[in-house]
Amino acid sequence: MAQSILQTRGRPRDASIDERALKATRELLLEEGFAATTIQRVAERSGVHASAIYRRWPSRIELIQTAAYDNLAPGQVRPTGDLRHDLTRFLRSYIATFSSPLHRAAMPALLGPEALEQPMTPQAWLLLSVRPHFKKILAAAPAGVIDASIDSDEIFDLLLGAAMVHACVPKEARPKQPVERTIDLVMRILSPPTNR
Amino acid sequence: MAQSILQTRGRPRDASIDERALKATRELLLEEGFAATTIQRVAERSGVHASAIYRRWPSRIELIQTAAYDNLAPGQVRPTGDLRHDLTRFLRSYIATFSSPLHRAAMPALLGPEALEQPMTPQAWLLLSVRPHFKKILAAAPAGVIDASIDSDEIFDLLLGAAMVHACVPKEARPKQPVERTIDLVMRILSPPTNR
Repeated sequence: MAQSILQTRGRPRDASIDERALKATRELLLEEGFAATTIQRVAERSGVHASAIYRRWPSRIELIQTAAYDNLAPGQVRPTGDLRHDLTRFLRSYIATFSSPLHRAAMPALLGPEALEQPMTPQAWLLLSVRPHFKKILAAAPAGVIDASIDSDEIFDLLLGAAMVHACVPKEARPKQPVERTIDLVMRILSPPTNR
Repeated sequence: MAQSILQTRGRPRDASIDERALKATRELLLEEGFAATTIQRVAERSGVHASAIYRRWPSRIELIQTAAYDNLAPGQVRPTGDLRHDLTRFLRSYIATFSSPLHRAAMPALLGPEALEQPMTPQAWLLLSVRPHFKKILAAAPAGVIDASIDSDEIFDLLLGAAMVHACVPKEARPKQPVERTIDLVMRILSPPTNR
């Protein structure tokens, strides 16, 4: 598996130990759920000592966040210059991530009370790292397509929220709204006054 | 406590039994968290028999959703005709709800894998019931302020997603973006071409 962007901070680690712990975490999340995914269970399953896990992740919340977000696809969308196309891929990619069984199982570690009490989790770090990347997608659009006053972070937050709604609100609770309609709305925000 | 909108379906119930069970559920969520909030524990704490709880809620997921969403504030925003003002109150109200300790503790019941497997939970029912209400807020705007092609459900979903991001993304992972900026973007979507 490729080197995780979440593991590039600090001194080099033994990647095989990291990978064994993360693999066991993912398996436990999928097979037994969030509550059962404790450091102790991960240690037993992976053969990595609990103390070695704690050296890498200060709590199970960080461990679970890293395991669930490790190869997060949205950061991989390369800008092509076709803005609508790129934004659609970006949004679809987040929806797929938020809809995956692994992410769903990890949800309490991402949005639960324990996660929110911590200042700078892998989740927060990852979201920060995606922002400059998203900015490049907007910057790749042809001149004049995007209003100069647009803040890419605000558009990113809008897409992130839209992805959460698409992935997390039960389909019975919302009208059948295709991803393309969300992109229509975002394109409407982006376009300069003369193009609207 | 006022009659819950979640309890108006079906035949009348003994409101005091409902209320005791819901109160115990809220207390358990806040004091001990999601995992500890089981039907059995709610029964012990409230003095309501587990069988009576199961008659009212098919699972702990439905019970927790009802307890967490019971008096959801966003449905209470009355349209004044000042669109920006109303939308701001609506968004702030959702952010406050999603940020509350009770809602955070209930998060796995709202967004976790168990919740998403069920077809029509109290959460889904509530979201559906808010949609017509939100439509009234848009309808109360003066003529010409909103583009006729706008679908109120799409704007609702956009605000819902924005509220999730405001409330759930750690503040370290996003720029300091005031609620007013989100409303700016939504107003930009809403306004007819001639007004932009």
